[in-house]
Formats: sequence, structure tokens, C-alpha cells
Amino acid sequence: MPDNAVLAHIDTQLEQSLARLMAFLRIPSISTDPGHAGDCEAAADWLVATLQEIGIKAEKRPTPGHPMVVGEAGEGAPHLLFYGHYDVQPIDPLGEWHSDPFEPVIEDTAQNGRVIRARGASDDKGQLMTFLEACRAHKDVTGALPCRITFFFEGEEESGSPSLIPFLKENAPALSADLALVCDTSMVAPGVPSIASQLRGMLKDEFTLQGPLIDLHSGHYGGPALNPLHEIARIIASFHDDTGRVAVEGFYEGVHEVPPETLRQWQDCGFDEHAYLSSVGMTRPHGEDGYSALEQQWARPTLEINGLWGGYQGPGSKTVIPARAHCKLTCRLVGEMDPDTVRARLRAHVEERLSPDARVTWDQDLEGAPASVMNTARPEFAAARAALTKEWHREAVFSGMGGSIPVVGLFKEILGLDAMLIGFAQEDDAIHSPNEKYNVTSFHKGIRSWARVLAALTRERG
Amino acid sequence: MPDNAVLAHIDTQLEQSLARLMAFLRIPSISTDPGHAGDCEAAADWLVATLQEIGIKAEKRPTPGHPMVVGEAGEGAPHLLFYGHYDVQPIDPLGEWHSDPFEPVIEDTAQNGRVIRARGASDDKGQLMTFLEACRAHKDVTGALPCRITFFFEGEEESGSPSLIPFLKENAPALSADLALVCDTSMVAPGVPSIASQLRGMLKDEFTLQGPLIDLHSGHYGGPALNPLHEIARIIASFHDDTGRVAVEGFYEGVHEVPPETLRQWQDCGFDEHAYLSSVGMTRPHGEDGYSALEQQWARPTLEINGLWGGYQGPGSKTVIPARAHCKLTCRLVGEMDPDTVRARLRAHVEERLSPDARVTWDQDLEGAPASVMNTARPEFAAARAALTKEWHREAVFSGMGGSIPVVGLFKEILGLDAMLIGFAQEDDAIHSPNEKYNVTSFHKGIRSWARVLAALTRERG
Repeated sequence: MPDNAVLAHIDTQLEQSLARLMAFLRIPSISTDPGHAGDCEAAADWLVATLQEIGIKAEKRPTPGHPMVVGEAGEGAPHLLFYGHYDVQPIDPLGEWHSDPFEPVIEDTAQNGRVIRARGASDDKGQLMTFLEACRAHKDVTGALPCRITFFFEGEEESGSPSLIPFLKENAPALSADLALVCDTSMVAPGVPSIASQLRGMLKDEFTLQGPLIDLHSGHYGGPALNPLHEIARIIASFHDDTGRVAVEGFYEGVHEVPPETLRQWQDCGFDEHAYLSSVGMTRPHGEDGYSALEQQWARPTLEINGLWGGYQGPGSKTVIPARAHCKLTCRLVGEMDPDTVRARLRAHVEERLSPDARVTWDQDLEGAPASVMNTARPEFAAARAALTKEWHREAVFSGMGGSIPVVGLFKEILGLDAMLIGFAQEDDAIHSPNEKYNVTSFHKGIRSWARVLAALTRERG
Repeated sequence: MPDNAVLAHIDTQLEQSLARLMAFLRIPSISTDPGHAGDCEAAADWLVATLQEIGIKAEKRPTPGHPMVVGEAGEGAPHLLFYGHYDVQPIDPLGEWHSDPFEPVIEDTAQNGRVIRARGASDDKGQLMTFLEACRAHKDVTGALPCRITFFFEGEEESGSPSLIPFLKENAPALSADLALVCDTSMVAPGVPSIASQLRGMLKDEFTLQGPLIDLHSGHYGGPALNPLHEIARIIASFHDDTGRVAVEGFYEGVHEVPPETLRQWQDCGFDEHAYLSSVGMTRPHGEDGYSALEQQWARPTLEINGLWGGYQGPGSKTVIPARAHCKLTCRLVGEMDPDTVRARLRAHVEERLSPDARVTWDQDLEGAPASVMNTARPEFAAARAALTKEWHREAVFSGMGGSIPVVGLFKEILGLDAMLIGFAQEDDAIHSPNEKYNVTSFHKGIRSWARVLAALTRERG
């Protein structure tokens, strides 16, 4: 039972907490855009100052890219490592925003009550601030953090985290702890507290198909020429069979069916399949036949084309047979699927199907990471679940997650550290999209949730 | 037998003829680019002045787009209408040119001897100038043109000829004649004089496939979401069967096999299939099984994707499932294939194959024109063939042509006028591409060819 005084303090300080989040949101820390490198520095500085204000020893640590922020304070078991990221996604298409992405506003909405509207409001500035504000409240009320906590923030999560692996390796002793906490995930449904217990992995690949040596005129060569746009369409069409299953040989090696008890739990987790599908214009799930939308999203692998192009894209018509066609793809991985093995099989699939005179070139190897399954047998998961259930008046669920959070796999691989993922984002937060928002409820009850979870973890070990 | 004095005059005046062509080529009359509208006016003015210099009554005629040039001179049968176009293709990619596209140079080359290098050198300024220089020589030597000739030049051929149909309709009496002559085609092989006796028709179409309402994150929706890139690939792949045949129901209605005697003539026409294929990196023809490259190019219809795009095309990777995918296509038509019927069947093919939740939208109807077959039974064809055979010391051939020249169909439809297509371009002229050229041999013997053809047509009727 956390100190009721801490929860009461959180409630009375909410407007001040919001004001601090809004100051953080005003820093346009877009990590992919070199023009915003100074803003990433500023966001890191802001975090260092904020940690210091709470009494946490903190510093900015340079990398070849954007800096890391590392801080530490508190005493006693357990030793927790909290991870978040201060960088945000680009804002294009800017024309679709209804307000300045870096001038946060609080709006009253019919569906979600008060929301904070800004780029990063949810992903991940709002989420990481729930943890910092919980720490601040605990410190304000009790004079100290509840236990020893290392704070670790990166500024490259939205641009592939190029500095993360070397930094983790070089700073493994300073970052080691008993358990990592991450606040970068969603709730499965409004009001349903969720601990993400499995994440899909991912591999990226890209290829170019060359047909003729040069662009050709379709009058002179239409018919005899191998059209690489036909070729790439045929090959992409061969990636799936009529049942929505990926048709690459051996693709499903290492994929396991979801255990019936987990399936039952998911069926009962409050996920609204109809709302999930209809909100984006779909009347049914389009993945593998025989699996629910939730299974398709959380527990089944995919092969997804993310970009496809070749030939003329301008206004009007051009009678060209282009020399080349291009394709970008990603696979979401589950179970024990190995990214390198899947990549090799995918490439073989394409190469075996090429027509004579067609050539394929692959992009240099892009990153890949296997799926992650959390160690939910650890007692901290039960403790956190109980704490969340108390805050939300709704049984907390172990949810799957269709996305990938590579840092979780790296914590395990490099630091030997299990992670617990608790987040308060909503499906409709529009992360990575125009008009991103974070519900004030997510923020407020998120802070309260962390206060309860920290107390529970401390008590569990204390 | 043309006046030998005319041929001799052409030979002695070659350098002056080249100088006039080069002056014409210096005018950057790119019709698609509004920034070059003034240059199109200048090219029309240049033609008017050049016609007047030869003693031809000529004037520039305004249209909503670039002006037409119309001239007339000469007396006696037959009354010929000569058509050409003074506009040229855009020059991008400019970086691939080895010299300024609008600063023509004469180069000595190993393969083609002297060539004139510039945008429009072949298509169509060099070609139309062969006719004007033949007229000029005849006038210089004899004091008059050999017969009554109407000159008709447009400046929108490379941008879809939007003003052509209304202009032909409004000026039908002034443009009526006994036979149209067009110099905008190629020789089937170097040194083989060619009269194009059939042209493929064309239809253009374009569609967008919508899957989800908005772009989606492949972590949140990968699996359940309908990916329009998969959908468009599947539909494009369904356009052809394994034998290269178009699989749209009824597509081949109105297509006829080439008569054996025409086939025999084509087999003997000097077309070098190996060179045609290998010059663009192909080892075999990729069209319908059982047809030669020449048949596939001249006598078989096609369904060709000219542009395909959707999703992310930038550097690196983006885990997006895009809302939309796009496709531009053209069909080359032969025989009695009707553009509107083919378009309707093609659209039905796509619509019948759509997955649930996918929607297709079609571009507003784009133009279409049926194939053209020349009336080679007219005695002028035999006369021209004999004249060309005499100039080139090689039997002139009736060739097919894979491209489309819509004006030919419009002359027939609006003016009731048959056309005879004689051109001296070579396959390697790089029309529409960087480093366009025209062989000086094409230019010189082209002028001589027209002098002989004009004499033969006049004699045949005289």
C-alpha cells in the first residue's frame, strides 16, 4: 500500500506536473532531422536539470549521435533501471495538424476528456514523465526515492538507436540493476491496465529488381521487354497464399501457437476488435485465416511491404518501361524466429522466382531483432499487477504487443536484465501521426500507477 | 526519275542544310514545360520564316496551347499534306548528356559516322527538315515545288496534342489533300528504307487502391490490416498468365494473327533481333510465348505498367502500412481492338478481384486511340517504295511499328485522309533520352529520298 500522502500529493500537484510536461514538449527534439540536433541536446539538458531538481545525480553523456542521459538516486532494494526516450518522430505532414506540434495545448474532447496535444505528448515524453513525476512526488512527501533507481534516457529511439548497443556495452556496470522498467507501451483498451508480456521482433530488408539496362519506350519495347514492375508485382504476390499465410518456405519455423490459457486471457482483456478494425475502415481482419485480429497482431509473424515504387509517378502518363523497381519490407517476428534465417529464406524465395534477364540487388543488411517474451514468472510482475489493479479498479492484464521495442532485447542480451513494460498510451493517441495526444487521465493515473508500483516493488523486496 | 540536278544540288548544299537544322535545334522548344512556351513560339516563327524563304505562303496559327504552322505552295496533282512537329521532349536527366542538348554538335562516331547530337535532332526536327530541304532543293533547281503541298506543323506532339483535334476540325477544308506524308518513324535496320504500314494504338489508364483509411503503423496493424501494396501487386500479377499472355477476359477480341506473307516479309526485313534485345540487356523476348520479338513489338497488344508506387520511398526504413497504392498503365492495341471496350474490361478485371475492404478509384478517362493500318494498296505506296529502293540500293520494306502516332488516325477520322509514313530515324537515335542524335546519313539520304519520292508521286499522277 503506497503512502496515501504520495497519491494525494500527486493529485494536488497535477497542474504543475502538466506544466512541466508542456515545457518538455516545447523542445522540438526530432532525432532523424540533423537540423534538430541542437533541440535534442536541449531536451537532454532539460532532463538532466529536471532530474537534478528532484535530487537525482544526473549527467548528459555524449555519443556519436544524440546524447544519453543517465542519473541515479535512492537506496535499498530493488535496484531499478528506468528507460525512456526524449526524442520524437518528425511532424510531417504538417498541414494535417490542427495546432502547432511544438506548442502543446490542453483540449477538452468528447471522447477522451482533457488531452494534451503535441508531438511526443504520448510517445514518449508524456509516458516517461509519468515515472519522473511519481519519483518527484515520492521525494516531495518522504524526502527520498523509494529504492535505488537508475534513470536512462536516449535520444535516438525514433531513428534506429544507432548509439544504443555501444553505449550499453561500454556502460554495462553503471546500467546494471535488478529489473528494467519501460514506459513506452499502450493499454489494450481504455481503462484496462496492461503489462506487455510479449513483443514481436522485426527484420528489415530492401531490394531492387533490374529488368532492362535503361528505361525503355513502351512503343519500341512494349511486349519483348521484361517489365520490372510486372516482375516485382509477381514476386510480391508470391509472398502470401490465398489464406493470408506467408508462402516463404520455412518462414514459420520457431512460431508457436498461443497457449489456450493465454488466449482465454486475451479474449477477456477488453480489446475491442470491432473498434480496432472499423476505426481504420476495415470490416474484418485480413491476416492469416483462423486467427483473431488480436492474435494476428500480437502472436503471428508478418511479411509486410512498406514501400514499393518504379517508373513514372508524375501527372499524366509516360509510356516508359522502367529499368528498375524497388521494394522495402519488414517482417514482424514471434517465438523463436531468427532474423538472419528468415532474411536468408526471404531472399532465396525472391531469387528462385526471378525471370531470366531479371537481377535483384539487396540493400546492405538492415537490422533485425528477435521477438521478446517477458519473464512474467518473476514476483515483480505479480506485485505490479496488483498495484495497477488497485489504481484502475480493473484487473491488470498481460498483453501482447504487435510492435517491437529493441531496447528490451538489448537489456537482456547485453545487461542480462529482465524488463517490465507498463504504459498508459491509448490506441487513438496518434503516435507517429499528426495531432498526437495523451489523455490527461493517462498522465494523471499513470503517475499514480507508478507511485503504487514503486511502493509495491519496494515492499515486495523490502 | 527525279531530276538528277536536284539530287546533285542536295549533295553540294549538305553543309548549308545542316547549318539550318542546327539553327532550328538551338531553339529549346520543350512543349510540356510552360517555361518554354516562348521557345515554342520562336520555333514556330522560325518555321514560318523558313517556309517563306523557300517561297511558301505560311503563317503561325494560334491555339489554346502552342501555335500550329500552316503553309501552302505549288501546283498540280497530287495534293500532299506534310506533317511534322517542332516541339521536343524534356531533357532530364540533364546530367547524363555529354553536351548541351540545345547546342547541337556534329560528332564523328565509330558506329554511325557523322551524327548531329541535340535534343530533337531525330525527333522530329531533323526528320521534318529532310522534307523541307528536299522542297528547297527542288525549288532552287526548278523554280517551283513539284506539286501542290500543304505544310502542317504542330508544337504539342510531345505533350499529348491537346489542340490537334479542334484545330483539324476547324481547318478541315484548308488541310484536306490527296495524301498525308509523315516523317516521324524509324528504319527497321540501318540502311533498310522503311514505310510504316501499321501502328499500334494505345489507351492509358490509372488507378488508386485504398486499403485502410489512414497510414498505419505495422506494429499496431501488421497482420490484421489490408496492405494495399500487397493488393496492388496481386492484381498486377493477375494481368498476365505464365505464357506472357494478357489474362484480362476478352482482351484479345479484334486481334488477328499476322498473315503468313507479311510475316515472311518481316522475317526478311533486316531487323536484328539479337541486337535489339542485347542492346538493352535481354537474352530473349519476354512477351507472349510463340511470337518473335518483332511480332511482339509490331503486331501483339500489351498491357504495360508504367508507374507503380505506394508507401515509403526515402532512405532507411519506415514501418508503415500505407493507406493507398497507385498504378499507371498503358495498353498498346492492334487490329480492331476498341480502346473503350478494352478499358472497360480492364477495369472490370480489377474490380472483380478486389479484396473486401479495398476500394479502387480510376483516373478520369485518359485518351485512347485504336491501331492504324495504312492503305498500302494505294499506288503511291508502290511508287514511294520504288523511289526509296533506288536511293538506298535495298528493297524498301513495309514495316510495322510498336508505337502510336495518333495524328495518323485523326487524319483519317477527321480529314478522310490516308497517310504514308516514311522516316529515317535509327533504333539507336536515343529519342526521348539523353544524347539524342541523328545520323548525318539519315539526314542527307533522307533529303534525297524525299526528292525521289516527290518526283515519283508527281510522275505517278502527272
